[in-house]
Amino acid sequence: MISDKMKDFVQSSSAIRAMFEEGKRLAGIYGAENVYDFSLGNPSVEPPIQIKDALIEVLNEENPNFVHGYMNNSGYEDVREKIALSLNHRFETNFSSKNIIMTVGAAGGLNVIFKSLLNPGDEVITFAPFFGEYRNYVGNYDATLVTVPPNTKDFQPDLDEFEKRITEKTKALIVNSPNNPTGVVYSEEIIKRLAEILEKKQKEYSSSIYLISDEPYRELVYDNVEVPYLTKYYKNTIVGYSFSKSLSLPGERIGYLVIPDEVEDSEDIVSAANVANRILGFVNAPSLMQRAVSRCLDASVNIDVYNQNRELLYNSLISYGYECVKPQGAFYLFVKALEEDDKKFSEAAKKHNILIVPGSSFGCPGYVRIAYCVDYDMIRRSLPGFKKLAEEYGK
Amino acid sequence: MISDKMKDFVQSSSAIRAMFEEGKRLAGIYGAENVYDFSLGNPSVEPPIQIKDALIEVLNEENPNFVHGYMNNSGYEDVREKIALSLNHRFETNFSSKNIIMTVGAAGGLNVIFKSLLNPGDEVITFAPFFGEYRNYVGNYDATLVTVPPNTKDFQPDLDEFEKRITEKTKALIVNSPNNPTGVVYSEEIIKRLAEILEKKQKEYSSSIYLISDEPYRELVYDNVEVPYLTKYYKNTIVGYSFSKSLSLPGERIGYLVIPDEVEDSEDIVSAANVANRILGFVNAPSLMQRAVSRCLDASVNIDVYNQNRELLYNSLISYGYECVKPQGAFYLFVKALEEDDKKFSEAAKKHNILIVPGSSFGCPGYVRIAYCVDYDMIRRSLPGFKKLAEEYGK
Repeated sequence: MISDKMKDFVQSSSAIRAMFEEGKRLAGIYGAENVYDFSLGNPSVEPPIQIKDALIEVLNEENPNFVHGYMNNSGYEDVREKIALSLNHRFETNFSSKNIIMTVGAAGGLNVIFKSLLNPGDEVITFAPFFGEYRNYVGNYDATLVTVPPNTKDFQPDLDEFEKRITEKTKALIVNSPNNPTGVVYSEEIIKRLAEILEKKQKEYSSSIYLISDEPYRELVYDNVEVPYLTKYYKNTIVGYSFSKSLSLPGERIGYLVIPDEVEDSEDIVSAANVANRILGFVNAPSLMQRAVSRCLDASVNIDVYNQNRELLYNSLISYGYECVKPQGAFYLFVKALEEDDKKFSEAAKKHNILIVPGSSFGCPGYVRIAYCVDYDMIRRSLPGFKKLAEEYGK
Repeated sequence: MISDKMKDFVQSSSAIRAMFEEGKRLAGIYGAENVYDFSLGNPSVEPPIQIKDALIEVLNEENPNFVHGYMNNSGYEDVREKIALSLNHRFETNFSSKNIIMTVGAAGGLNVIFKSLLNPGDEVITFAPFFGEYRNYVGNYDATLVTVPPNTKDFQPDLDEFEKRITEKTKALIVNSPNNPTGVVYSEEIIKRLAEILEKKQKEYSSSIYLISDEPYRELVYDNVEVPYLTKYYKNTIVGYSFSKSLSLPGERIGYLVIPDEVEDSEDIVSAANVANRILGFVNAPSLMQRAVSRCLDASVNIDVYNQNRELLYNSLISYGYECVKPQGAFYLFVKALEEDDKKFSEAAKKHNILIVPGSSFGCPGYVRIAYCVDYDMIRRSLPGFKKLAEEYGK
């Protein structure tokens, strides 16, 4: 009796549950300390202590009806103003509170902006590999996700293939840098060329093509890599941000959209996003957490921990004969599977109690994602398994 | 460039903004203390102190990565189990954790269940007057809201008119008791007859018709009125609950769905709701707040404050010649407008600096909603205005 659209989802959700049960089964046989779960993007580093302090300060200092009550569907005015000023300070932008809409995480923000923009039949382009949920978010509004094949050399976007896929139906492009699942940061040169192509195609079709920048991993970068702020390169850019990774708060569902004045029909889109927040049932981003993060805009989790994990896992895997582009951000390695079928390869890894996700889930078969937001010690213990796995494939 | 579906919403959202600006304008001229805003359902009573205590305890006692991290999309297992046991204790039900899905408020819960159940073209019935957002929630999934005309005698549902509107396309009925906007509690007798009609029609069409009980006001009742727990009267009942009003936490977006085992295809619906929570972008109900409310399941706001407001406002308005069914729950009076056009009547009230909402917004023209979740003293100060307004209409 569930809806037709949900039937496949229920099917695949039982598959996920089966995988989860399998993990528990392995832990039961071999002991939890001998099962190496690299399948989830759940931050392992603690939230910065400022978050706890801020939460307690808000509870002690501010009026409880104000802290826990309704506000404008777009969020508290003062919180939005603080975020705007912080962005202006960091990226030399020119935002104010009216450009910021507080959302239930980045997932909520993307749904809000897609509800605001998409008509049935519209096309949204993204570069493979990509976060699999994009397909669902776009599908929620009966639009189609069009994917650009991966450039497996360095996992920067393939702009020639991108250009070919832009049609009069193209309403948006969604990019995610630092990228899940590759950890690659799109270079400034690529962003500039991307913007040129978008400008050209907007003229050709007399259309507006919105560049949606999904940025939950913005603060998780290594080796002082710069992540370009995209609103500065292309006018029709909308940013979706989340505090899930930067402050290790994924369960709290707190993030925001940035809709700059320069965006075409900016005022209408801001109004639509405000309403979409309400009628999709979010109503507003969780109120206490809005107030708390606004006191911690300069805080961040300790990136060194993820960096140590990255170095250990990357260097070890390379030495065992695996191939992988060294990630500059996020907390994933995207490793070439040692056989063509990434699902079979993931099964082979499981025999060494190593749980990883096939690249097919990200539109990029032949690869696997290894999430290294885990205990350093678990990585260390897993290494003999990775080594043996490589040896089985003649490495 | 916004989507076609959103164009009307942007229009009406500017109307709401205009009303809000008008309130500010009036406050500027006459002073904030001389403007009487009865338009919003934002709780005025403070959250019980247990909430603050629970939040601080969770922050001090539990592991921060656990408290702020991802969990199953349906919520923390222990939180769901505690809620199930609490319901079982209060209503002699037989739920366990698997029947409970934590949601981003009741608005999130309703969207999750509609996404799970509705195919385009399906019909969902509700009784006027009703919370206007139902139309949008149902419309999000391209289904149609079918409304049963109001029974203005006592605002109990008109079951004959209801029965006439059930077709083979009817997928669900949504009820809201204690009701927004009338404050009426649907009687046990009505519920029993409602269940009989649903059973009969399910047989007639060989279909499943789900009764969705939207219960944000369950704990806000006066004079010891009983609110029947609907899963006990009809098998295909799904409950949507929110802590927004019972604990004065509307900004926190915390609630849950109850999907009993007795519901047809219960397991599939639970799976679908789990997935819908994820792909609609909620992902999960805010995590810290899940943990906090699970420690406060026996707490409640001080209803006496709302009851004093109810008595003062109801008795005063009746004495001035207004007509109104005395509400048994929630924090609204639904008063007959003193002229046919409820919008014009609301405008006339505004001349006395009284802000109220036309019943047309709730599918019931000719009435106005007065939200008394406000300061007692504001009600007191507003009374001369209500009296003069009645006098203008010859009362």
